[in-house]
Amino acid sequence: MTITLPAPLLTDYLVRVYRAAGCPEDEARIVAEHLVEANLKGHDSHGVIRTTGYLTQIRNGVTKPGAPTRVVEAAPSMAVVEGGWNLGPVVATRATEIAIEKARATGMALVVCHNTMHAGRVGAYGEQIVRAGMAAIGGVNTPGARLVAAFGGGHRRTGTNPLMFAFPGDTPETPFVLDMATSVVAEGKLKVAVNKGASVPEAWILDGDGKPSTDPRDFYGSGSNAQPGTLLPVGGPYSGYKGFGLNLAVEALGGMLSGAGTAVEGPRGTNGVFIMAIDVARFTPLAAFTGLMAGLGAHVKEPPYQPGVTEVLLPGEPERRTMVQRLREGLPLDDETWKQTVEAGAALGVAAPELPAS
Amino acid sequence: MTITLPAPLLTDYLVRVYRAAGCPEDEARIVAEHLVEANLKGHDSHGVIRTTGYLTQIRNGVTKPGAPTRVVEAAPSMAVVEGGWNLGPVVATRATEIAIEKARATGMALVVCHNTMHAGRVGAYGEQIVRAGMAAIGGVNTPGARLVAAFGGGHRRTGTNPLMFAFPGDTPETPFVLDMATSVVAEGKLKVAVNKGASVPEAWILDGDGKPSTDPRDFYGSGSNAQPGTLLPVGGPYSGYKGFGLNLAVEALGGMLSGAGTAVEGPRGTNGVFIMAIDVARFTPLAAFTGLMAGLGAHVKEPPYQPGVTEVLLPGEPERRTMVQRLREGLPLDDETWKQTVEAGAALGVAAPELPAS
Repeated sequence: MTITLPAPLLTDYLVRVYRAAGCPEDEARIVAEHLVEANLKGHDSHGVIRTTGYLTQIRNGVTKPGAPTRVVEAAPSMAVVEGGWNLGPVVATRATEIAIEKARATGMALVVCHNTMHAGRVGAYGEQIVRAGMAAIGGVNTPGARLVAAFGGGHRRTGTNPLMFAFPGDTPETPFVLDMATSVVAEGKLKVAVNKGASVPEAWILDGDGKPSTDPRDFYGSGSNAQPGTLLPVGGPYSGYKGFGLNLAVEALGGMLSGAGTAVEGPRGTNGVFIMAIDVARFTPLAAFTGLMAGLGAHVKEPPYQPGVTEVLLPGEPERRTMVQRLREGLPLDDETWKQTVEAGAALGVAAPELPAS
Repeated sequence: MTITLPAPLLTDYLVRVYRAAGCPEDEARIVAEHLVEANLKGHDSHGVIRTTGYLTQIRNGVTKPGAPTRVVEAAPSMAVVEGGWNLGPVVATRATEIAIEKARATGMALVVCHNTMHAGRVGAYGEQIVRAGMAAIGGVNTPGARLVAAFGGGHRRTGTNPLMFAFPGDTPETPFVLDMATSVVAEGKLKVAVNKGASVPEAWILDGDGKPSTDPRDFYGSGSNAQPGTLLPVGGPYSGYKGFGLNLAVEALGGMLSGAGTAVEGPRGTNGVFIMAIDVARFTPLAAFTGLMAGLGAHVKEPPYQPGVTEVLLPGEPERRTMVQRLREGLPLDDETWKQTVEAGAALGVAAPELPAS
């Protein structure tokens, strides 16, 4: 069962919940807007569903709302940010501001973060940079995470390590945003397949013996093999070394430069974050750049298409379509997620919003 | 038939050939070493075989040896380089030097190039940056190129747009170098399959009607379908949007920021080049970084492996193994490539080297 909520109602409610949990007003707003936007864009796994976990970590003292974001290493085009174990969207949003400011001064900049909690949807920081008229490269690793095999390997070694590229598009409302797990898919797609009782395509997972499987339960050790299996890097049996290489590059940029740690051991943060801003206008007039983006977009969208395909979508387009629909029709949440969120809010003395009649 | 040449003999010979073609001594050496190193690393398609084409372009006045590399836009962490239509390895090597110098001053830098000829093996510039103790991101697009389909598209739209990440490894001799076409494979693998009469795996190419094919001749229009087909982006039928997105990101960084042009039209260069240098030591001590690289490498190499796999290789390792072997045993060149190279050299008055007795 699903309920439907207007996004502004949900944002206002979450701001009050995070305020009650001890977040300053500006931080509560950053987190609430980050989560609701993830839902609006269809990335429900990075949306409101995270709230109960975030609140538990605040209650346990693991997450420290209000902690300042400190720059511990700096040069004109780089900074290492120590997040004080604040909520990830707060730290990463501030780190992104620093990257933009430095890029404005020198042409480009790279900012990395440690001591930060779950950073959320990486594409959000790309969009923040694009709003400043800049291009972005970024990603996060998850220190200590084990979900994805090496190319040729038979067991879990690293996280799904998303990599992000974002560019100003032909209009301010249509940025190019590629936000991709370097595994063949994010883990969420396996959960969905398990819940549907569906199989998954070949070359997505191995079972607990390192053998190919199309039963998504084999990833969790709940299929015919009781040992948990592993996700594979993007690229398949021939080109999976590419996804594997990109996955390791995110370890190096997100985990090593930041000081957050790698898949081997992760002492300093839930995510190691890297965010790069490139000031397009230093290279070429922004209008010339966006004109070229429009031209390239039209070029790649030209038919013919593959059998069964009716159009080519650019990175960011599927999310925008979902957002337009959800802004109009409301944001769907499953009953269980909403119930848990409301309970967590009530425990902080925040009453649930009145749902509009459906 | 194949001949075998010691690498130093071949390098010396090529230096004399490029000198005779009008290149200053330092430029001749850059190009000769770039090409021989590509052969040593097993990337024969980017090696000595390019010489006859490069010489033809010099003779026709398209390529201008000795042309200065001019910085036409600059800020502390960026530069736009105008290559004067010099040989690509010359322009890109100089652009890489600029990126390193700027990164040393500010923490990181991005340099892009237009008016440059074929840039060669992108990994070479990553290795140049790694030798300076830095990390690298780079790539090249090919303005006007049409080889790869959009995700879901049925015809050729963009080049194979290689993307490169390089990091200092656990020793100076073992850098991490990922140098990957954003298509499922580079075009050269299709040529090899055609020459062998072999089929290619599913999801590599489409035929001229945009339908899946496993006959590599269909890419060239020499199979059952006379229309040329297309390469697919890396990622396969489910995740090909990732390869497509990376391919477009290389268009934006390599073609648009540089001013070289995109796949739509390419007025200013054979390749649009982007090269980023990141001064690791500004973020964390270099020895700490390389220690983490060693730890991560050991971690991902741990067994078990997939059925039929005996080890996990890191990006750059296959190339190093080939290089060790070819430095020891000599560099294999097919008769035809060698014959054409020698003829082109003789036309410039440069005698072929005496081959060692085999």
